[in-house]
Amino acid sequence: MQKQQLPELHPVAGFRLGTASAGIRKPGRPDLVLMALAEGSRCAAVFTRNAFCAAPVTVAREHLAQGAAAFLLVNTGNANAGTGAQGIRDARQCCEAVAARAGCAPSAVLPFSTGVIGEPLPVAKIQAGLPDALAGLAEDGWAAAAGAILTTDTVPKGVSRRLEIDARTITVTGIAKGAGMIRPDMATMLAFIATDAALDAAALRDCLVHAVDQSFNRITVDGDTSTNDACVLVATGSGGLPAMSAGDAGLQALRDAIAGVCVELAQAVVRDGEGATRFVTVSVEAGASSGECLQVAYTIAHSPLVKTALFAGDPNWGRILAAVGRAGIDDLDLQRVEIHLDDVCIVRDGGRAADYTEAAGRRVMQQPELTIRVVLGRGECTEQVWTCDLSYDYVKINAEYRT
Amino acid sequence: MQKQQLPELHPVAGFRLGTASAGIRKPGRPDLVLMALAEGSRCAAVFTRNAFCAAPVTVAREHLAQGAAAFLLVNTGNANAGTGAQGIRDARQCCEAVAARAGCAPSAVLPFSTGVIGEPLPVAKIQAGLPDALAGLAEDGWAAAAGAILTTDTVPKGVSRRLEIDARTITVTGIAKGAGMIRPDMATMLAFIATDAALDAAALRDCLVHAVDQSFNRITVDGDTSTNDACVLVATGSGGLPAMSAGDAGLQALRDAIAGVCVELAQAVVRDGEGATRFVTVSVEAGASSGECLQVAYTIAHSPLVKTALFAGDPNWGRILAAVGRAGIDDLDLQRVEIHLDDVCIVRDGGRAADYTEAAGRRVMQQPELTIRVVLGRGECTEQVWTCDLSYDYVKINAEYRT
Repeated sequence: MQKQQLPELHPVAGFRLGTASAGIRKPGRPDLVLMALAEGSRCAAVFTRNAFCAAPVTVAREHLAQGAAAFLLVNTGNANAGTGAQGIRDARQCCEAVAARAGCAPSAVLPFSTGVIGEPLPVAKIQAGLPDALAGLAEDGWAAAAGAILTTDTVPKGVSRRLEIDARTITVTGIAKGAGMIRPDMATMLAFIATDAALDAAALRDCLVHAVDQSFNRITVDGDTSTNDACVLVATGSGGLPAMSAGDAGLQALRDAIAGVCVELAQAVVRDGEGATRFVTVSVEAGASSGECLQVAYTIAHSPLVKTALFAGDPNWGRILAAVGRAGIDDLDLQRVEIHLDDVCIVRDGGRAADYTEAAGRRVMQQPELTIRVVLGRGECTEQVWTCDLSYDYVKINAEYRT
Repeated sequence: MQKQQLPELHPVAGFRLGTASAGIRKPGRPDLVLMALAEGSRCAAVFTRNAFCAAPVTVAREHLAQGAAAFLLVNTGNANAGTGAQGIRDARQCCEAVAARAGCAPSAVLPFSTGVIGEPLPVAKIQAGLPDALAGLAEDGWAAAAGAILTTDTVPKGVSRRLEIDARTITVTGIAKGAGMIRPDMATMLAFIATDAALDAAALRDCLVHAVDQSFNRITVDGDTSTNDACVLVATGSGGLPAMSAGDAGLQALRDAIAGVCVELAQAVVRDGEGATRFVTVSVEAGASSGECLQVAYTIAHSPLVKTALFAGDPNWGRILAAVGRAGIDDLDLQRVEIHLDDVCIVRDGGRAADYTEAAGRRVMQQPELTIRVVLGRGECTEQVWTCDLSYDYVKINAEYRT
């Protein structure tokens, strides 16, 4: 499986990023990022649906509702989650510190945190790191920021696209972090995408929801939805184009570009999944509804038995069949179900396909990337999710996380 | 964590067991069990709800509907699942072989299989093993049978109780197997319980469903519901008591004894969970419904992050909190939620309890047995499930299962 190398991340006019080492968890590593939005930018965000959402999620939601955002403040090393009323006060205090230095309203600052849950946020360290982050603000700060937001990630994740709209070059660039506690529900752990196009509020929201729904909401590493998931889309409007609304020529291309950036970022999160050695697409086809396709796909993608067989490269397809069978479709007609590993059909007519051979199954299962394709034979809907295997290293990483 | 040593298994009058080595998967190990029910016995069973249920499940259901059972035929080493029409024919052929030798109708034989999914059942080997199993039929055959039905289990599992009803000693004895693919849905992998009491059909069914619901339906190792789950309760009526019906004196005590046997067997399955090093009770209290308590309990019990923290003995309680938060209770009031590790309160008032210390949490988490207790503060319902941790050995066992 190929982990993504960080490609060239094109600057987005009107969007600057500054990074600092605040010593939040480990001394000397970049762990604080400030992002500054040019005046006139619009910002939309989606957040985790975990009921125990982190303090910064609560505060960012509040601030977003109060008006235009000017700064995004991100720290790694501490999630400021499970921290109760003190956590809310701490998140607000960080926003106030940015506001005081930058001369804006505290509500124009959106806070984001990632890292260990349940420990008090070291506010003083973050405050002390702000001058460096402010001083470093630059439109070419993407790569440094991509590195500074990581936790158990092993590689930084960023994607950048350029497209022509009305003879102008518009850029879409995004970064994301996440490797464990990944089964985003509305958004991944943390992702920030910016474009220099201009969008009205409805079009911006539509582009974000559309993109997230087919990217971060289609991946899982371990089924554990985080307390801190957030995905932010910023349109700076600095690219020289008038604001686009629903129906405008050019919006579709931009919408596709944003979705494409998000899909690549989401897949990069799975490729960097904790302990992952294989990248697996689970495609469920011919379902009666999108919902039942996803239900089957996630049951397969979350099955520890399927995931350990993937790790072993063992075509133990009985485990895939058992997962399909327990996915909760009551009136499933087994005679119509097919299961394929890439181009190899393993199950047909209620049992092992007549022409299946163990050697053929093994060849596919030992590839670094493969597709498990399930045909339900019930309708026209198709969904796919992306996941990875479950290895010794997943256990090691998570058993030793805090030591 | 203490794995159960096989206790003395008291014979049940009218219920004989015979074991043979048929070489189904490995030569020389006992892998075939025949159980013979005295005339007049009643038999009830519950089976997996996995849509891809195994051929023997389909055939056993059919046979049970056709009349009184006289024999239970169990093989390990091959699940006869995912085997399509051939699998049904194979299961029937095994029943016919027993019927021919024992002089009963084929429909009086119920087949059960456990082992690898998707490989053809070696019918000839099973047929060849039958004479030994028949010749060995004896009321003291429980311990040998408990060993002969195992797959990845490391210890045999059996429980036996005696109680006095109307001045007669009645016995309840049961055996079970299961260590992986364990999240039973109606029954565990395989469990056989017999009593020499006499019960009418309704009382027998009620005793079985009541027992399974609070035992095998309350455990999970990995969330993977098997294709072959089955739990059988036999009442031979050979104990000298008249048949009991609903409302009879003595029935309640028998019902409790059967449930008690099943709870102990179910817990033994979890203690022997693949790679398990800790036995964990997840208790969810003060819920608005039994359903939401179970939803929260299973979300915790299935979380790979919680399970790896348990393996490490690390009180990384943020992962428990995150699991509660993603369990799908929309209107959860975080201020009312409490989370405890045994007697140590970790979460209260929406965040870490004021008096919580890492040392106190670590002390509990490093015990071989512990309880994660969640108080939802929403109502009067309580549910508990039993589970184990996720260790390197779980991955090893399941990555190397077929090699």
